[in-house]
Formats: sequence, structure tokens, C-alpha cells
Amino acid sequence: MPRTVALFLEYDGTKYVGWQSQQNGPSIQDELNRALSERTGTPVIVMGAGRTDSGVHALAQVCSFQTESALPLSAFREGINVLLPPDIRVTGAADVRPGFHALRSVESKLYLYRTLERGVGSALEHYRAWKLTDPVDLDRMRAAVPALIGTHDFTSFAAADAEPNRIKTVTKITIVRMDGLAAPEIRFEVEGTGFLKQMVRTIVGSLVDVGRGHREPGWIRQVLELRDRQAAGKTAPAWGLYLKEVRYDPSLFISRL
Amino acid sequence: MPRTVALFLEYDGTKYVGWQSQQNGPSIQDELNRALSERTGTPVIVMGAGRTDSGVHALAQVCSFQTESALPLSAFREGINVLLPPDIRVTGAADVRPGFHALRSVESKLYLYRTLERGVGSALEHYRAWKLTDPVDLDRMRAAVPALIGTHDFTSFAAADAEPNRIKTVTKITIVRMDGLAAPEIRFEVEGTGFLKQMVRTIVGSLVDVGRGHREPGWIRQVLELRDRQAAGKTAPAWGLYLKEVRYDPSLFISRL
Repeated sequence: MPRTVALFLEYDGTKYVGWQSQQNGPSIQDELNRALSERTGTPVIVMGAGRTDSGVHALAQVCSFQTESALPLSAFREGINVLLPPDIRVTGAADVRPGFHALRSVESKLYLYRTLERGVGSALEHYRAWKLTDPVDLDRMRAAVPALIGTHDFTSFAAADAEPNRIKTVTKITIVRMDGLAAPEIRFEVEGTGFLKQMVRTIVGSLVDVGRGHREPGWIRQVLELRDRQAAGKTAPAWGLYLKEVRYDPSLFISRL
Repeated sequence: MPRTVALFLEYDGTKYVGWQSQQNGPSIQDELNRALSERTGTPVIVMGAGRTDSGVHALAQVCSFQTESALPLSAFREGINVLLPPDIRVTGAADVRPGFHALRSVESKLYLYRTLERGVGSALEHYRAWKLTDPVDLDRMRAAVPALIGTHDFTSFAAADAEPNRIKTVTKITIVRMDGLAAPEIRFEVEGTGFLKQMVRTIVGSLVDVGRGHREPGWIRQVLELRDRQAAGKTAPAWGLYLKEVRYDPSLFISRL
């Protein structure tokens, strides 16, 4: 029976077409398949916990793969990092139970969305945060959050080509202001058991409409109930989004580096 | 009499040979000269407050130039940003007194140096911070700081080809640990009235030797007194360094955007 290995990944998504292999350019998945196949000497295809879009970053994406290789876990971290470009890093590796599946075993995921509060663009954060030129009121956005918490049909906040089952559970949304390297930041964190395509970005785009005063906080609940993507605000840009954490049942991990 | 204009600049130095024009690749100065010459219709050559090395970043570099142009200040900020690559941004523009000179008028400068505390490299911070694999003790480094404060001959902490006058004044060095986006960070800030080539990076490299326990805190004073570059620690990598602030006599500014 082949061994199942999970990898924890950090990446800067700027130069990639996204997680998923595509015809039109390099993907994170392609880079990992190539490096792991080279290291093990047999073809490896990794499965990711989530398909991050082009430009989206990850602090802790998780992927898994099966292999007959008996290499130590360090060969799948340090030994893979030497074969990867510096904007993709394996930060951890684990032997996991045979039933583990990076996508289907997910218990919950946490996304971070970064916005900058500055009139002029930032050279250092250009590909890493969404610049908000107008002032944004955090209390207005926070007042809109409770409508989104819980199990709902999130059709209004999903891309048109998202999966057919639009019922998802959001467990937590936090919004904080903090000092960033180049400018003050507002950081959104959205936690849930499952997400639709562009769901976090559309939630953030809609909350920012409320924060700017273009919409009232109660509008978010109306949007949700309409189950119509046209009702929500714009999708926030990909480059502000980070997959921050993916959680699994700890008993699925046999040993971890 | 031509008008003198000062610009405040943020840049990601990763792709550049440094501030100064050079034969071997694109410089920040080249990009600004090109954009300003195009905007004003006459050749412009900017003077920087400091020559940041290849890979060094800036949160607020300052440059100045003379022009016969009567364009409003916004033409030198928004109007220049549209002509620059996104990793260089003009964040402010000012009309300054005729005597203003970006380099010679400097009263003090503040540099930031970022280090990451993590065993494995960071994809997101690879070109933006120095990764320290070994633990570093902040108290040991802080104990070494007082020896550096004040007016000294900093030959031991300067590149061999630094300017002949090695007497410089360092007014403040702070060392703090904080949470970063991808990993815990130690941030060094070094403030002074003048700096020699590679001086901040050699001070940081030497302090890290103390923090790691390879040297005692008292060693920093000995190094300073030896006036010998061979006595100090390694020069910390360029990519962790940020020119954070340049201060001038406020009376030199006529109007600022």
C-alpha cells in the first residue's frame, strides 16, 4: 500500500496562474509535481486543500500525494525546497493516515485578506494587498458580519461557475486595523468549513462597500437572502488574499516535520 | 532660476542594481530620470538622499531635481507613477527652497533591517528579510548597542571602498521582536546623521553574532575601537534593509503634496 504524505506550503502567487495546473502558464501544482517527481524518481501528482486563483498567496496551503518512496520527511521539505523556485516553500511535511485527502479531509480553513489604507499605491505591497483610497469604517463592517456567520446558501457571494452546492458554513469573520510595513492595513480573516470560488473575495468586496458608506450594514443580509451574485459588491482583487491555515483532525497525522 | 522639487519614494529594490545608475542593469535613479524627463519634456537628473545597494528597499527615499517646468506637484506624483513600474512609487512631492539638496541637506536618516526567525525559508519574505535559523537573544544585542551610539570612527563597520571620512554619528538603535506576516521578526532600526557604505548591514551582522552567542556584547566596542573592517561580523544581506525615513529642516519645504 503506498505511503501518503502531506506538505505545508507557503507561496507568493504573483507569478503563477494559480494552484491548479493550466494551459496558460506555470502553476504552483506543476512546480510541486515536477520537484516531487524528480526527487522520488516516479511521477507524483499532488492534491491541494484549495484551488487558489492566480495571484492569491498562501501562508499554509496543504497538499497531499501518494508515493512508494521510503525517503525521510526531510527529503520532502529541505530536499524539495532546493528544487523549487524561492517563491514556493515547503514549510512542513507529514506522514498521514492512508485515508487522508488534502481536500476532502479538511475540517476548516482560514483566509486572510489584506487591504492598505493609502491614497497612493505601495511599491512593496502592490501584489500583496488591495489599496483602498477612500476611508473605511470598521464598525460599519463589523455590524454587517453577523448576517454571514452560520450555514447559508452563499450563491450571492460565489462566482457564476462555482460548484452547484452553495450551502457553506462560515464560523468567524474578524476585521482589525494595524500598522503595516508601508501603510496602515485593515486585515479581514474569514474562517469556515468550506468556501465557494471567489467567496472570500466577494465577501470582502461587499463589506468594503459597507465600510465606505456606499451601503448600509443591513444590506449584507439582504444580499445573502437574494441568492444572486449580481446583488453583492465587487470581487476584491486576488492579490490581497492569503490561504492562512487549513485544519484537519490531528489523528490523521502519523508524524510531522 | 529653476524650480527645485523633492520626491518621496517607496521601492522594492529586488529587481534593481540599486539606487545609482550603473552599466550592468536597471537602477531606481534611471527609472526616475526617464519618467521625469518624459513628463517635463526636458532632461532631468535626480539626486538621491542615499545610494541604496542592489536589493535594498525604501519606504521613504528622497530625491531632488531642478526643472523649468511649471507643472503642479500632482504631475510629479500621480503623473510620474503612471510612467513608473509598480515596484517604484512616488508617495509625495514637494516644492523646496533653492538651496535644498537631497543628499547634502539631510539632517538624519532612519534605516530598518528585518530578520525572520524561522528554520525554513519564507516564500513571501525571501527578498525582503534575512532568515536567521539559529535563536537570537535580544537582550545580548541590546547590551552591545550603547557602544555604537554617538560620534565614532566607524571604519570597522564600513565597506573597504567607503568614503574616506569615517567619522559618523549614530543617534539611536532599537531592536524589537514582533509577529510578521509569515514568521516572527526581529526588527532593527538604526538612526544617524550619516552612514558609510554597508554600515547598517555590518552593524546588524555583528549584533546578530552577539545575539547568537558567538560573541560577547562587549566585543562590539572592541571592534569599533580597532578601526578594522576585518574585526567586525559579516555584512547582513542587502534584501533585509529598508531606507525608512530621511529628515530635513522643515523650513526647506515650501509646499508639499
